[in-house]
Amino acid sequence: MLFTDMDKDQLMTLKSELDAKFEECKSKALSLNMSRGKPAPDQVAVSFPVLDEIGAKSDLCAEDGTDCTNYGGLDGIPEARKLFADILDTDPEHVMVMGNSSLNIMFDQVARGFTHGYFGNKPWHNYVKVKFLCPVPGYDRHFLVTQHFGIEMVNIPMTSDGPDMDIVEQLVSSDETVKGLWCVPKYSNPTGITFSENTVKRLAALKPAAPDFRIFYDNAYCMHDLYDDAPVLPDILKLCEAAGNPDMVFEFASTSKITFPGAGIAAIAASEGNLKEIKNHLKIQTIGHDKLNQLRHARYFKNADGVREHMKKHADYIRPKFEVVLEGLEAELAGTGVGNWTRPLGGYFISFETLPGCAGRVYEICKEAGVVLTGAGATYPYGKDPQDSNLRIAPTYPSVDELKQATYVFALAVKLATVEKLLK
Amino acid sequence: MLFTDMDKDQLMTLKSELDAKFEECKSKALSLNMSRGKPAPDQVAVSFPVLDEIGAKSDLCAEDGTDCTNYGGLDGIPEARKLFADILDTDPEHVMVMGNSSLNIMFDQVARGFTHGYFGNKPWHNYVKVKFLCPVPGYDRHFLVTQHFGIEMVNIPMTSDGPDMDIVEQLVSSDETVKGLWCVPKYSNPTGITFSENTVKRLAALKPAAPDFRIFYDNAYCMHDLYDDAPVLPDILKLCEAAGNPDMVFEFASTSKITFPGAGIAAIAASEGNLKEIKNHLKIQTIGHDKLNQLRHARYFKNADGVREHMKKHADYIRPKFEVVLEGLEAELAGTGVGNWTRPLGGYFISFETLPGCAGRVYEICKEAGVVLTGAGATYPYGKDPQDSNLRIAPTYPSVDELKQATYVFALAVKLATVEKLLK
Repeated sequence: MLFTDMDKDQLMTLKSELDAKFEECKSKALSLNMSRGKPAPDQVAVSFPVLDEIGAKSDLCAEDGTDCTNYGGLDGIPEARKLFADILDTDPEHVMVMGNSSLNIMFDQVARGFTHGYFGNKPWHNYVKVKFLCPVPGYDRHFLVTQHFGIEMVNIPMTSDGPDMDIVEQLVSSDETVKGLWCVPKYSNPTGITFSENTVKRLAALKPAAPDFRIFYDNAYCMHDLYDDAPVLPDILKLCEAAGNPDMVFEFASTSKITFPGAGIAAIAASEGNLKEIKNHLKIQTIGHDKLNQLRHARYFKNADGVREHMKKHADYIRPKFEVVLEGLEAELAGTGVGNWTRPLGGYFISFETLPGCAGRVYEICKEAGVVLTGAGATYPYGKDPQDSNLRIAPTYPSVDELKQATYVFALAVKLATVEKLLK
Repeated sequence: MLFTDMDKDQLMTLKSELDAKFEECKSKALSLNMSRGKPAPDQVAVSFPVLDEIGAKSDLCAEDGTDCTNYGGLDGIPEARKLFADILDTDPEHVMVMGNSSLNIMFDQVARGFTHGYFGNKPWHNYVKVKFLCPVPGYDRHFLVTQHFGIEMVNIPMTSDGPDMDIVEQLVSSDETVKGLWCVPKYSNPTGITFSENTVKRLAALKPAAPDFRIFYDNAYCMHDLYDDAPVLPDILKLCEAAGNPDMVFEFASTSKITFPGAGIAAIAASEGNLKEIKNHLKIQTIGHDKLNQLRHARYFKNADGVREHMKKHADYIRPKFEVVLEGLEAELAGTGVGNWTRPLGGYFISFETLPGCAGRVYEICKEAGVVLTGAGATYPYGKDPQDSNLRIAPTYPSVDELKQATYVFALAVKLATVEKLLK
């Protein structure tokens, strides 16, 4: 029965039952965590052989002869560029491979817009206000970078096909202060949806009012499929070029959730013009990135197929975790009308929508029962979810057994928060 | 005989002799390079065992239990912080260990002054003008970072004790727009001198007009001694604290020229207040640095003594190279009065002063004979050496035999350029 169809007596009775179950939960003194978008230790261990790929006795030169043990080179070694080009379905000439963090590359790109501007356009620090479009719910780290530089964030609703493109097109084409749009095109953080082909085409065909408008296309989960029939994204660089917008997109990727979170390699894919400008900044910023780690990774994987095989091992760890959470939500919440949730085919998150005004309370109840969730609001700019309804579930770090318990607590918390709300 | 004491006839005769020698040099079609401040491949190879320090079967947790294969931690792992603290003669609490490039840490620190300001002071992009003091000759990369952010650079003469402190004190205490001072305190790039204890004390005791003035103390060559009786620098952090200026210095170091140029680890040492502010930026900028590379390095060296032992191996490669250049200069140029040069006890460079107006010409002549030098002017802000007299010699990359030839060509070029100048 839908909770919203219950009368007050029914809700009171239900609340007593739920309260009893909650007391039982609390008595177990659980300590569970579904907040961390990171792989579990046993999962990370599938990548340990990468560490043995190069050693003191290896040939430590890249395939073009570059000595990876010494200074030199800002583009990344050729085999690492090829690897990322293969992963991102583009050409090595469109790729630069850098350090250990794609977030840091994104940060630097926003910073460069702020301090110097792109392609000779006015640096953003010289504007009274510039804006970024932020599909919501979205990735808190993107929002924090944007806020750090005082950029105003504009919420854009997410649909099951990606950001609401009618709104995006209207704002991008009419407002010269709109300088950026954040995207996680595949297995979006947190909704898990993949942009439709039509959405990607409409993105590539945008007619920005600002010549320095850029799509920040964070393809963090490009290889992170849980099932064989994975969605396929068209190459946005090619589409942008075809649409007469060759310079409009920065695409980011890393091996953080392929090999070692924090000790992998990261890349940017962009037009020749953008890469040239980036390189001019990099020449000032650093003498180069860690080519030995690039070599280690490129030699281990060889190509995108090598990565795909490796990702199957990760999927074998993650798939049961997603499934136990989804089964738990289904078992506990189907037919109650207390919320909707996504059923992602990959990535690292499940997104849950409560009835308006319940998300914060669900977080609190979970916490009281020893289950840590990502803070309510974290998936929105400024940490403000206007509906107070979105929660991000990160199922990869805990064990399957822990997730089973945590999902039970989560579902109970959603029911309790909903009943409390309906009784108000 | 001093060239400057020669009459025109003597100079003409000398020129004919030098021209003949120069033609002979050119006929050898040399291809030598004394421009690169980087170790030679055989020298880098002494660090290859570092690569075998961790592998798939190693315990990959830091000594505090941090899993170095996964996300987490912005300070650097404890053993890496201890290592740099030991190297820099400070406490681990004053050290954060980051990625592969100390230049990138310096860049970020200047960038943070520009975009956000330090300790709540006005960001530098909101000033019409800010200034950095640049001891000259100095390191071109420092000057390029400064110029990149539109900061005006003020030349400060270097003495054999460090920057001319009378001028530094006067400018820092009187001008609120002076926000920074670049220093390479040990084996300075390029002069090779080490700051005297008195200079370091005067630096620590500066009374800046600007509350956000910082000394950018690039201790790049802190462990890079060629001889046993190496100069010792006092700990500037402690001196700053004692002088009531705890937050006035950022100290930088890396293992770039200890293990792998471009694939080592880098660190910043600063006050608690500075590190707290840096961490607040880092939280936005990255999820963390490469802890596996930190672990590899910390386990290999264990402590500063481990580094010292390792640096002796480097010194054994480098010492004969410095000596062959210095001997060549002595043999060819002693008593001619055509220039002065430094005789460093460590570091990567020898600095040469021609008579005014000759450096650019020496560079050209060397190039014509197949010997590449760092561009004349590179050691000055904006690439402008007002006297056109300084040249930086980098003796570490070529072999001893190559250096012998290159030094002969260099000395010949100095003599030729001087004679040409005197004949004008």
